[in-house]
Amino acid sequence: MAERVAGPEIERLIQLLARLPGLGPRSARRAALHLIRKREELLSPLAEAMAVARDRVTTCSTCCNVDVSDPCAICRDGRRDGSTLIVVETVADLWALERAGVGGALYHVLGGVLSPLDGVGPDKLSFEKLVTRVAEGAVREVVLAVNATVDGQTTAHYLTDLLAPHSVKVTRLAHGVPVGGELDYLDEGTLAAALRQRTPF
Amino acid sequence: MAERVAGPEIERLIQLLARLPGLGPRSARRAALHLIRKREELLSPLAEAMAVARDRVTTCSTCCNVDVSDPCAICRDGRRDGSTLIVVETVADLWALERAGVGGALYHVLGGVLSPLDGVGPDKLSFEKLVTRVAEGAVREVVLAVNATVDGQTTAHYLTDLLAPHSVKVTRLAHGVPVGGELDYLDEGTLAAALRQRTPF
Repeated sequence: MAERVAGPEIERLIQLLARLPGLGPRSARRAALHLIRKREELLSPLAEAMAVARDRVTTCSTCCNVDVSDPCAICRDGRRDGSTLIVVETVADLWALERAGVGGALYHVLGGVLSPLDGVGPDKLSFEKLVTRVAEGAVREVVLAVNATVDGQTTAHYLTDLLAPHSVKVTRLAHGVPVGGELDYLDEGTLAAALRQRTPF
Repeated sequence: MAERVAGPEIERLIQLLARLPGLGPRSARRAALHLIRKREELLSPLAEAMAVARDRVTTCSTCCNVDVSDPCAICRDGRRDGSTLIVVETVADLWALERAGVGGALYHVLGGVLSPLDGVGPDKLSFEKLVTRVAEGAVREVVLAVNATVDGQTTAHYLTDLLAPHSVKVTRLAHGVPVGGELDYLDEGTLAAALRQRTPF
């Protein structure tokens, strides 16, 4: 599938598109043709949007979110409650929580999770920045919204130890039955956790 | 899934990426973050490749292929046999035939197939250009490499009639068992065609 059959300029576009997550060589070719066919409606604005992202998007020096301004729009939002800090692994997780509309708090993006096998130690993640923010004193509660995976939970434990010297409440997301989920399809661990942490009806 | 949670610049990138075939809203978000994370290796070259495509890619005025030159590289390739013209529906089909390495001939891209229900009549496709090319006299054989769909076959019949006044041989791709295919999984129409058109072993 890797043979070059179009001209070098179009082939280069295809090769680069194929490196996007979710696109393989075949769909990259389809995407390239689609772009060429929709030059005015899609190719031109997309090239422009990418140039803007390349030139202006930066990482927030406070929370490590991505935005065209530093501090990012969330950190600058005066209506948010600065006493609660939601710690997430990635910007995608931050977006997921924002979509859930529970926002109102500030975030801290770790940039990943501890993973000794992949060579990801505490120095590769924004732990130091998090401790500095907490040490400044305004934060009352740190919500560890990391994934419920082994690496995520290891990271949560590590962060709990790291934050222990500071007078800050450390919480984590509740385990339980997903809204709309059917019990029959849930794993035993989740069901047991949901039963243990049952709430008044 | 359509809520805007990132800044307007990043949201615009996501919205445009989501319009690529093969990417939905969720994978467009993943792709946008991937691009931002790989600014130097991917975002920057892709923005550049798209700008090149936007500014330089054009449609070949001879065969309707896409390339940065007109006539396209295939039409300009002196080693190709100008007496055989392979008629395809789309540039993607042209690329598929080129990958098969049977090239050596010239192409003519129709730009689609006749489809009265979708309002695609002969005037919307490059039929006139094809007839002009054939009328010039160098073409000895026109291979109708259109898809084996109802619309494709309708188009093939229409083209056969259109080319009848010209002294040119009109052929079509063979029907038969796909290489590597198992008989048990083939439809009856293909099997019947393969048996009718059996060849000496």
